Amino acid sequence: MWGGRFAEGPSAIMREINASIPFDKALWRQDIAASKAHVAMLGAQGIVTAADAQTITEGLDKVAAEYEAGGVPENWDLEDIHMTTESRLAELIGPVAGRLHTARSRNDQVATDFKLWVREAIDEVDAGLEALQKALVAQAGTHAASIMPGFTHLQTAQPVTLGHHLMAYYEMIARDRSRLADNRERMNRSPLGSAALAGTGFPIDREMTAKALGFDGPTANSLDTVSDRDFALDYLMAASQCSLHLSRLAEEFIIWASQPFGFVRMADSLSTGSSIMPQKKNPDAAELVRGHAGRIAGCLTGLMMTMKGLPLAYSKDMQDDKPPVFEAHGLLALSIAAMTGMVAESDFKTDRMRQAAEMGFATATDLADWLVREGDIPFREAHHITGAAVKLAEARGVALDQLPLADLKEIDSRIDERVFKALSVEASVAARKSHGGTAPDQVRARVADARAALGME
Amino acid sequence: MWGGRFAEGPSAIMREINASIPFDKALWRQDIAASKAHVAMLGAQGIVTAADAQTITEGLDKVAAEYEAGGVPENWDLEDIHMTTESRLAELIGPVAGRLHTARSRNDQVATDFKLWVREAIDEVDAGLEALQKALVAQAGTHAASIMPGFTHLQTAQPVTLGHHLMAYYEMIARDRSRLADNRERMNRSPLGSAALAGTGFPIDREMTAKALGFDGPTANSLDTVSDRDFALDYLMAASQCSLHLSRLAEEFIIWASQPFGFVRMADSLSTGSSIMPQKKNPDAAELVRGHAGRIAGCLTGLMMTMKGLPLAYSKDMQDDKPPVFEAHGLLALSIAAMTGMVAESDFKTDRMRQAAEMGFATATDLADWLVREGDIPFREAHHITGAAVKLAEARGVALDQLPLADLKEIDSRIDERVFKALSVEASVAARKSHGGTAPDQVRARVADARAALGME
Amino acid sequence: MWGGRFAEGPSAIMREINASIPFDKALWRQDIAASKAHVAMLGAQGIVTAADAQTITEGLDKVAAEYEAGGVPENWDLEDIHMTTESRLAELIGPVAGRLHTARSRNDQVATDFKLWVREAIDEVDAGLEALQKALVAQAGTHAASIMPGFTHLQTAQPVTLGHHLMAYYEMIARDRSRLADNRERMNRSPLGSAALAGTGFPIDREMTAKALGFDGPTANSLDTVSDRDFALDYLMAASQCSLHLSRLAEEFIIWASQPFGFVRMADSLSTGSSIMPQKKNPDAAELVRGHAGRIAGCLTGLMMTMKGLPLAYSKDMQDDKPPVFEAHGLLALSIAAMTGMVAESDFKTDRMRQAAEMGFATATDLADWLVREGDIPFREAHHITGAAVKLAEARGVALDQLPLADLKEIDSRIDERVFKALSVEASVAARKSHGGTAPDQVRARVADARAALGME
Amino acid sequence: MWGGRFAEGPSAIMREINASIPFDKALWRQDIAASKAHVAMLGAQGIVTAADAQTITEGLDKVAAEYEAGGVPENWDLEDIHMTTESRLAELIGPVAGRLHTARSRNDQVATDFKLWVREAIDEVDAGLEALQKALVAQAGTHAASIMPGFTHLQTAQPVTLGHHLMAYYEMIARDRSRLADNRERMNRSPLGSAALAGTGFPIDREMTAKALGFDGPTANSLDTVSDRDFALDYLMAASQCSLHLSRLAEEFIIWASQPFGFVRMADSLSTGSSIMPQKKNPDAAELVRGHAGRIAGCLTGLMMTMKGLPLAYSKDMQDDKPPVFEAHGLLALSIAAMTGMVAESDFKTDRMRQAAEMGFATATDLADWLVREGDIPFREAHHITGAAVKLAEARGVALDQLPLADLKEIDSRIDERVFKALSVEASVAARKSHGGTAPDQVRARVADARAALGME
Repeated sequence: MWGGRFAEGPSAIMREINASIPFDKALWRQDIAASKAHVAMLGAQGIVTAADAQTITEGLDKVAAEYEAGGVPENWDLEDIHMTTESRLAELIGPVAGRLHTARSRNDQVATDFKLWVREAIDEVDAGLEALQKALVAQAGTHAASIMPGFTHLQTAQPVTLGHHLMAYYEMIARDRSRLADNRERMNRSPLGSAALAGTGFPIDREMTAKALGFDGPTANSLDTVSDRDFALDYLMAASQCSLHLSRLAEEFIIWASQPFGFVRMADSLSTGSSIMPQKKNPDAAELVRGHAGRIAGCLTGLMMTMKGLPLAYSKDMQDDKPPVFEAHGLLALSIAAMTGMVAESDFKTDRMRQAAEMGFATATDLADWLVREGDIPFREAHHITGAAVKLAEARGVALDQLPLADLKEIDSRIDERVFKALSVEASVAARKSHGGTAPDQVRARVADARAALGME
Repeated sequence: MWGGRFAEGPSAIMREINASIPFDKALWRQDIAASKAHVAMLGAQGIVTAADAQTITEGLDKVAAEYEAGGVPENWDLEDIHMTTESRLAELIGPVAGRLHTARSRNDQVATDFKLWVREAIDEVDAGLEALQKALVAQAGTHAASIMPGFTHLQTAQPVTLGHHLMAYYEMIARDRSRLADNRERMNRSPLGSAALAGTGFPIDREMTAKALGFDGPTANSLDTVSDRDFALDYLMAASQCSLHLSRLAEEFIIWASQPFGFVRMADSLSTGSSIMPQKKNPDAAELVRGHAGRIAGCLTGLMMTMKGLPLAYSKDMQDDKPPVFEAHGLLALSIAAMTGMVAESDFKTDRMRQAAEMGFATATDLADWLVREGDIPFREAHHITGAAVKLAEARGVALDQLPLADLKEIDSRIDERVFKALSVEASVAARKSHGGTAPDQVRARVADARAALGME
Repeated sequence: MWGGRFAEGPSAIMREINASIPFDKALWRQDIAASKAHVAMLGAQGIVTAADAQTITEGLDKVAAEYEAGGVPENWDLEDIHMTTESRLAELIGPVAGRLHTARSRNDQVATDFKLWVREAIDEVDAGLEALQKALVAQAGTHAASIMPGFTHLQTAQPVTLGHHLMAYYEMIARDRSRLADNRERMNRSPLGSAALAGTGFPIDREMTAKALGFDGPTANSLDTVSDRDFALDYLMAASQCSLHLSRLAEEFIIWASQPFGFVRMADSLSTGSSIMPQKKNPDAAELVRGHAGRIAGCLTGLMMTMKGLPLAYSKDMQDDKPPVFEAHGLLALSIAAMTGMVAESDFKTDRMRQAAEMGFATATDLADWLVREGDIPFREAHHITGAAVKLAEARGVALDQLPLADLKEIDSRIDERVFKALSVEASVAARKSHGGTAPDQVRARVADARAALGME
Repeated sequence: MWGGRFAEGPSAIMREINASIPFDKALWRQDIAASKAHVAMLGAQGIVTAADAQTITEGLDKVAAEYEAGGVPENWDLEDIHMTTESRLAELIGPVAGRLHTARSRNDQVATDFKLWVREAIDEVDAGLEALQKALVAQAGTHAASIMPGFTHLQTAQPVTLGHHLMAYYEMIARDRSRLADNRERMNRSPLGSAALAGTGFPIDREMTAKALGFDGPTANSLDTVSDRDFALDYLMAASQCSLHLSRLAEEFIIWASQPFGFVRMADSLSTGSSIMPQKKNPDAAELVRGHAGRIAGCLTGLMMTMKGLPLAYSKDMQDDKPPVFEAHGLLALSIAAMTGMVAESDFKTDRMRQAAEMGFATATDLADWLVREGDIPFREAHHITGAAVKLAEARGVALDQLPLADLKEIDSRIDERVFKALSVEASVAARKSHGGTAPDQVRARVADARAALGME
């Protein structure tokens, strides 16, 4: 019945399904820090003697030094990082180690450790995003006037500038950073002292431990505190949105790098060859970034489903909070770094871009707008007149501004020679100087704002 | 080949797959408001004459009055609410209607309308959550000292108070409201004037339309603006977290209402009977709230997947942004109202709760803590001694505080008669007065804070 | 407290959250059919008299005729389609209507109705997929030898034929149909007679009702039967996989229709124009098909989450099974029809495709293979030699087969003039005649197999 | 700019994001087996000499022996298991190793390896599920007549037997096994020989390699073959459904083990204690099984999202196929084993169950049915009469069968003393002998069927 891996039966199964040490050992720094803050407080409050507090603190430092040097031992019988550390502490300093767990429980301990970890993850991602923004802004500054086709539905729509296009991603990343900052502030309350679920009768000082660990203060309800994984979900949600943004830019790089587009040559360092086709240069990094968006969103979905319908307070299901957060963070941090590399090191083929911008009658809207402005024609009517002009140009196989004036006049007599000034891609782009528009001057203004915000001067 | 519903072939298919009017007619108020703001600005800037602006504005008011009175007509050939409205406007006021679409596009128009809708949805949810918080706080105040078993792993752990338990949900909802407030602020920039993707050459005033529509200002990049659905995802994420919280309380109500628990009698108004079992009183509302968490998270997952990998700028895939947001909002608003009803109208059976709190050796931790405090025994050792006492009580079939002192002394001689004072559920609860703990005084203090925050005095 | 929509308080909320009639009225045909099968059995078994059975049957036919003519009335107080129908039946035939519900419950009734609905949905999707396969096979037959670039990583890799490419989707759809057939068989057991959860004491004949409704027999466990929604999940999973396949072809159409590719001109009937850019022809149908994959997968995710952790037997959460299935089915049926239209009516630009196939050194593998075959060189070495040739051609800006033999010989002396025969795109494609390869003869053989399987002769 | 972990810049990032060896080394057995099948075919077809084929085969055996003894070396520069193995082969046997990759590509190689791995995973899960079914059937046989409350909405509905309840899960698992069997058959076609995307010009024999690897034959389209991950999604979908079933039984164990229910005492081997509450016995294994359903469904969601919209043929995004499948499989295999342990080793408290079955007027339906049968009263009317009886019993605080006959007669004069025989829980259960009903004889018949199907005689 218990064949194969679990020949010993339920106890072997339990040992494996129950152990979190294979992944929660990643929390060791946080676990040591929180224990040190806790014991310092126990000492200060007289719950343990100053001498005991000192002994425990030194013991914790020794355990930390061991972990730093040799890694965290993975003994499944000790279940998790908390028992692994306390057990080693007891070996090092004896029974006094047993005083460390006074006035706390694994439930508030793990919430504290994990919050500290997530807070660091937020800070790491934010730093990565700042670097990505700087790369975007630098390229956008260089290409504030480089003309490319602007697409909607991946159809050539209107000319835009590459700088404007890159600055769109600057805006997305700015929202990602704002989301992370909000999350960080919302979660920054200390769980320590909530104990198992009901608080504790010992005269603890939760403000003191909160302050020592960089929290803004203690949480307000012990039952909520040990049941709460909002901070993990908030992180996964911010990570998902960010990875969606990255997936869009990745998709663009992949399309732009295809032979028919030829808008970009990806950096050799972020591409690979083929095991069978020697001519290939594959945008692997971009594809992996795009693919990772799926896995990151999968991590979010998984944790939402795990948390659904859990009664208070702590349930063991919540042990499944850490693998998705750890996985998503690893994938996101790598994706951000890879995208920063792609932005910084890609060779944009602005000639091809400009050439493409002149295909597809991209300035048709400019003709319609000219008719409105100069002919005082309602936009809907101007739109119809322009449609006729595009049809004629298409039939002739020429660009809009290559149609003879006579032919244009035949379509609508209000058209005169001034129109041709409006129909070049440069004129089109330069005209769109509404706030946030694609005109090079607008782009330069936005780049300047961004440089100031990022402290790039 | 085109059998059945689509016998006419592709054009019939396209008509159906392309039409968004069946759902986006929900945006009619926003569409009218945004058009009025736009035309007022066109008039102020001299892009259309004051007379034309006036005519259009009056026409829009007439269209709105028609919608208000008779609903929005659903003509698939007009595709969406924007064309439906503009088409009706043209019927009412003639060709001057064609001037309304000057210097804008459906792309910035739909982004504006949808943002306005989501902003209202946020405000509606926030108001609902405030009512739910008030209901929680009212019951928590009543039950600040009503003792119930606190569970972890759904096993009796330590006594808590019902008021403390309900205030845990107050905290969760507070985080939900904070998340909504953050989202509202992040999204509150006006898309109007971004036009199709590149901005416009007309001398528009984006600040003016932004202000008229209650935005904090215009967005900064036109490509980003028409491609951005972060605000929809932010809403779905906040909705998902909120519905997860509600699903947890719903699960608790369902378990509490079961015969073996008997902790609560659900309000008749929120229960149903059975088509076959006349004695049944089913907690349907609670189950629907729990179930809706799945659908709401499904809406989020769907939109994340739809947005993944979309190149800039607008793609038609983004038309699938509205159904999940509309669906999730409807489910969430209803869930919040139902939960408010359940909290306010449930009849909590505090006798049964208290009785249950006395089962399961819920004050074992208090014995351990007493040993630490009074016997100066390290917690880990105290934990072992307590384990022995529990074992003995379990074997005898009695509660912990019914064990004779002699027997306790045999387990550990440091135990004396003072211990019994620590072992009642009242003493246990009263002791846990650490910040955020379950002691009635703590609960009352938190309730007072909450009442002040909610303006309930 | 109960402001706004729910001013009446909990009863108004409950009325709205509890009513399933707004969506489950879609089940009316199935509900009538199942009731008729049930009452016929009750009559045959003597549980109701023959006369009563007759009266009820005729009454049900009348109700059905009313629904057919005027739609199903949506009265929230009657909650669902079952009560709506039974209530109308009672109005029509009096108290004898009350005998219909003997020996059944809403729990087995709804499971039966919904299974019947899903079974029809499967059959409808299967028919749609057959039409799509026929469209693919027809185009593949036409284009068995039309050369296009085969991509990996969206980089030109090796020449393939358009027929081969389209037949790849034939295979995906074949798997989708196989999955649907498996699901249909697995689910085709009748729930009727499982009653509320425990079966019934009436001497019913479950084989009889099963047969009458086209089931292969009755289910084996009443508790499982009323708790089971595997069939709904199976449907959503098959729908998700199918929509993923469609999303891939949709993505290809979108990329192929872009100006830089120009591989296809989408049918006018499945494209739209722009509200501002008169030259646009947007592949809206393809984008909607791609986007719908997100919503369909969201429906699956939602129902999985709703079903997670539900104790036996029926819980009201399960009322949330129908909206996602109905929504996914509508989106999928429409997506299949739209894709069939796109495949059948697209105008493939084979000249552009062939031209693109000659860019990007697509026959580099053929050079490597030639070296292995003719020069007896290990593949890895041949791969390196070919890499040198590609580099030279790239530097010269010429195709591989335009390099002079002398230069090739300098790279490796074993190359001789026979090599040029291998380097044309025709030769490349023709050579790959391994089973399932891209050689036109292979493609024709697969097309012939498919035509036979589809009965297209 | 490239601070922290990636100080070296893009090449360090690429090295890390691109390497799949950290996870795909799990495929080493499959990779060796597929290479051996491939080279044997190359030899048989004369594409490589018999001697070379022999050398390569022996070399592969040596590599396999090294992996078996010392694990697979994880050198990121070799990217994946394929290059790791080929590179080691070249060290061992020299340049002839370069002939192994003739007529194949990493694209068909990885598809083959991964399919083989998934096929084994299916077989492993199926074996685990068979063991779980046996455990369920054994307990169901023991408890065919053990009476417990049957719940709907977690409210006491009608008495059922524990054996019947457990057999409901037997049915769910039977569907899971059927799904796995369908998937296994659908996926069992060999990718090998599809090469990069277009097939190959070498005269390979795909039937031979297919047969050698246990496939039913080769796939039919090379482009589809290297782009297809349906088999991975099919596995994840089957795993998700299975884990949902397990989550439901897990939820029941958790509720049943709570003090107010007390229906079951979980095995010590599958429970844990508390770090702070010595009396606790937590159903950790059940909670972890329930929680894992979230992560498994998250893996499915992630891969669906990654695959969405990928153009043909292979894209690097697809490298993200393996981590979710590996993770889900590990979690599922462990969950099945843990659940088998819980079923086999739990101590069901049948006294408590029976006692609970007598609460809650669970035989009310039996009274209604008796009225229909004996009084020839339409069911709906009988339902109302019974409702009155329940109301009276509830008011008196007695069970239904404790109401005096006189009182019952007052409610409806057609009631006589025979009714009491119908109102015991035994009579209720025994009566429900419709096919699939809860009557002990029905349960025994189903158990006998199951034992035969499982070969348990």
